Amino acid sequence: MEKRARVLIDCDDAKGLVYKISKVFYDRDLNIDNNREYVDKEHGRFFMRTIVTGLFDIQELEDELRTVAPADAHIRVIEPKDKDVILMVTKESHALGDILIRYAAGELGANIKCVIGNHETLRGLVERFDIPFVYVSAEGLSRDEHEEKMMKQIDTFEFDYIVLAKYMRILTPTFVKAYTQKIINIHHSFLPAFIGANPYKQAFERGVKIIGATAHYVTDDLDEGPIIAQDVIPVNHRLTWKDMQRAGRDGEKIVLSRALALVLNDRVFVNGNKTVIF
Amino acid sequence: MEKRARVLIDCDDAKGLVYKISKVFYDRDLNIDNNREYVDKEHGRFFMRTIVTGLFDIQELEDELRTVAPADAHIRVIEPKDKDVILMVTKESHALGDILIRYAAGELGANIKCVIGNHETLRGLVERFDIPFVYVSAEGLSRDEHEEKMMKQIDTFEFDYIVLAKYMRILTPTFVKAYTQKIINIHHSFLPAFIGANPYKQAFERGVKIIGATAHYVTDDLDEGPIIAQDVIPVNHRLTWKDMQRAGRDGEKIVLSRALALVLNDRVFVNGNKTVIF
Amino acid sequence: MEKRARVLIDCDDAKGLVYKISKVFYDRDLNIDNNREYVDKEHGRFFMRTIVTGLFDIQELEDELRTVAPADAHIRVIEPKDKDVILMVTKESHALGDILIRYAAGELGANIKCVIGNHETLRGLVERFDIPFVYVSAEGLSRDEHEEKMMKQIDTFEFDYIVLAKYMRILTPTFVKAYTQKIINIHHSFLPAFIGANPYKQAFERGVKIIGATAHYVTDDLDEGPIIAQDVIPVNHRLTWKDMQRAGRDGEKIVLSRALALVLNDRVFVNGNKTVIF
Amino acid sequence: MEKRARVLIDCDDAKGLVYKISKVFYDRDLNIDNNREYVDKEHGRFFMRTIVTGLFDIQELEDELRTVAPADAHIRVIEPKDKDVILMVTKESHALGDILIRYAAGELGANIKCVIGNHETLRGLVERFDIPFVYVSAEGLSRDEHEEKMMKQIDTFEFDYIVLAKYMRILTPTFVKAYTQKIINIHHSFLPAFIGANPYKQAFERGVKIIGATAHYVTDDLDEGPIIAQDVIPVNHRLTWKDMQRAGRDGEKIVLSRALALVLNDRVFVNGNKTVIF
Repeated sequence: MEKRARVLIDCDDAKGLVYKISKVFYDRDLNIDNNREYVDKEHGRFFMRTIVTGLFDIQELEDELRTVAPADAHIRVIEPKDKDVILMVTKESHALGDILIRYAAGELGANIKCVIGNHETLRGLVERFDIPFVYVSAEGLSRDEHEEKMMKQIDTFEFDYIVLAKYMRILTPTFVKAYTQKIINIHHSFLPAFIGANPYKQAFERGVKIIGATAHYVTDDLDEGPIIAQDVIPVNHRLTWKDMQRAGRDGEKIVLSRALALVLNDRVFVNGNKTVIF
Repeated sequence: MEKRARVLIDCDDAKGLVYKISKVFYDRDLNIDNNREYVDKEHGRFFMRTIVTGLFDIQELEDELRTVAPADAHIRVIEPKDKDVILMVTKESHALGDILIRYAAGELGANIKCVIGNHETLRGLVERFDIPFVYVSAEGLSRDEHEEKMMKQIDTFEFDYIVLAKYMRILTPTFVKAYTQKIINIHHSFLPAFIGANPYKQAFERGVKIIGATAHYVTDDLDEGPIIAQDVIPVNHRLTWKDMQRAGRDGEKIVLSRALALVLNDRVFVNGNKTVIF
Repeated sequence: MEKRARVLIDCDDAKGLVYKISKVFYDRDLNIDNNREYVDKEHGRFFMRTIVTGLFDIQELEDELRTVAPADAHIRVIEPKDKDVILMVTKESHALGDILIRYAAGELGANIKCVIGNHETLRGLVERFDIPFVYVSAEGLSRDEHEEKMMKQIDTFEFDYIVLAKYMRILTPTFVKAYTQKIINIHHSFLPAFIGANPYKQAFERGVKIIGATAHYVTDDLDEGPIIAQDVIPVNHRLTWKDMQRAGRDGEKIVLSRALALVLNDRVFVNGNKTVIF
Repeated sequence: MEKRARVLIDCDDAKGLVYKISKVFYDRDLNIDNNREYVDKEHGRFFMRTIVTGLFDIQELEDELRTVAPADAHIRVIEPKDKDVILMVTKESHALGDILIRYAAGELGANIKCVIGNHETLRGLVERFDIPFVYVSAEGLSRDEHEEKMMKQIDTFEFDYIVLAKYMRILTPTFVKAYTQKIINIHHSFLPAFIGANPYKQAFERGVKIIGATAHYVTDDLDEGPIIAQDVIPVNHRLTWKDMQRAGRDGEKIVLSRALALVLNDRVFVNGNKTVIF
């Protein structure tokens, strides 16, 4: 039966890669529906995302591609299907809500396995959508104890990504390492401006004329992971920092949902501390 | 008891208006918290929106302001409170959903009296939020008959605004006249480009590099009413018109919610076929 | 000696094109420095722009590529070098000035053969940059006679593109046909909104909240040619149409210069009435 | 004879200011053509910019306004006229060029008294516009000695503002203090991101998806002065830092010219480390 798959290749650059890879597709009589490549010359790294259609076996195709690619190649052949995600939230509903509405419309491209909150605030909203809400209070717990409790919950699920939809606590390296390149965060500033706490207040005090939002992979360094998407909105002296916060929420939720769509469609490659996005 | 009110004045321009109006505030010992004025010189029209605080009676203040303003003056003194809105929808959930999430968070600044759909599609989503959904099918009805049935429903409610959150049928002059300056629509293009049906397909076929969305008051002329807010997003040749439609939804919902916030905060004056926005 | 060339292919889509083309590069031991492809599925059209480096003869490579591409293929192998352009202007200096400053800095990527004006106004500015200014007055001439005089001037030069840097007269089909796909215009609106005369006045009267500019190839239909680049700037009720015109100039000049850079770098393919831009 | 003037007031907030000030205008039978006010509640500071027309004496009006305003009030009544500016540059021509083209078109709203360069590179361009170019080489000089030489040149002119149009050396506190609130700089990043040297390289290395430019008053703290205007442009992984630098130039020049227009039209109030812009 005719199949459709995403071929994702990430490897050291070498002469003839496009030729050798497209030869594999050609010899198997596959159609190329869409093809994007990029070579990071600074680091000699090759990235490719191709949509192929035709009669083929996923594993066989992946194996054959491996024979023509450099030894270090990271190759995936993936049939498009909904991924599984876990959301983590605190009290604000805008980023979560944007995801829930897309989910309810069948437009998210992901199953939401559960929403974990360190506060109860958003239980009502989540349960309106018949999604399990898991409350893991941090009260009386050390940061490590709290994360351990959350990880126990998280690890009861199969999932592809953890999405921090305005989860307002810093995660420890232990947590981050447990889910490498699987955690996506929305930071409420135009990184690297205003790293850390209360970026809107920082922006207000600096008197900037534009504020922003940044979706990024979470790494050990706070707000320093590979950036997936950013957007900005103009502000002026009339806005208090509360006004900026309110205005900024639209940017936050749209940037997070946009980044999530890119990730769920396998359009994002992590390249050191940056991303390549097709 | 200390009050806070919005003073909205819209009248023929005349010398000394700012002085005379601010004298009223001064004589009554009111504080001006925020003051915006604009004179449309082309039409000799004066607009003013002032936030005053102090000890005063709403009606008395309005009456006194009337003594200093030109005879034609449209003067309102309004205590900030949630307005009442009716939403009208068809099948798409993004604009509706954005409003519902804000509503559930207590951030909309309005009570949603009901959602009227000409399809059943969105009943589930609306009822998740414990809001009445009224289904008024157009099947087998003339346009006039359908609108009459809707108006019967609408007129059972007290309300300030009707919000067309992607209501995909054209309204007749009868309907529009019944709710003059009370109907707000989101059109899925950067008006006046791509008036009418399927603007994303029109945009795709024209090969534009930017698409947009426009929130406006509804008047008799299709897509010709006073514009409240607009926004755009960049596109390129890789997007099909379906992709543009998908990408455009974020713009639509944000522009509609932004326009709605302006209207609900009494920041919008209609000035002929334009708006003055403070 | 090592060469660097742009390979531009535009042809009917066919299975194996990427493979066959990359095989040509591989067999000749050429490096691919950059490769972009796009398939217009609606029209079954394939576009490719590749930068190759290595030892090769331009004509031989082009000929060999022709053997693997469909019969209708439009194939160009081009060594990067400055193109030749003729500018046409009327009275406004901003778009012309932006081009002149880039030219003087050696950043335009083009030689300016001459500037033709239907008014004398900009002679002084042009001559400051030691570029010939040719004044072709329209006074007392029919449109055809005026264009004939201009074409006589134009045809004394070898050139690649004619750039209308705010040339404010409509060109006849005769003129346009003489320089098919060679004329680039900046229109001072966000097309297709406000086609024709005085778009800022139209925008002002419509009360839009955003104005724009559009660079496009000129075809027979006024303001209907393939769009290369667009940009927008926010406006509000405070701006007169003169203010909008002033504000819009920055957009116009940047969009024109951006479009020109794309064209001069052979990044733009015309695809029917649209463009594919790599 | 009928006059037109800008009234600029910056003082501690107090009850009745709008009333008292508008009374002065009313009693003198002046027309208010445009009026903007703002109260910084955090610091209890009032700002007002009014355009008045009528028969009046500048000094008398200013004196009378002083009688109704708080003791600390900073009050200016200014007839609109071109200001005088000195430009400082290094090697890049885009920001300078944008200013020169506006100047040559009579659209700058300022006289350029001279351009001072720490390199000879831009002499040719400047002299094309019949503006004196003053070369002050830093070779063999300490920073203090170099600045002393420049200040000697600067102080031979009457001027209102010094515009750093990509002047690429850091100024000492001595220099900055000599021209307090008179120096305007364009920084080639979206401040406060990427303060200091080579912001495009920093942006490239961080992998941001948007780059920006910031025009600000220069204060003792490098890149920390009050921000006047900012803008951004989207980038992606395909751009090298040189590409970002090239792309960023358009933003830089437009932001600087926009900021300069605001300053020259007396639309900018400095408010601590921020600006209020009308």
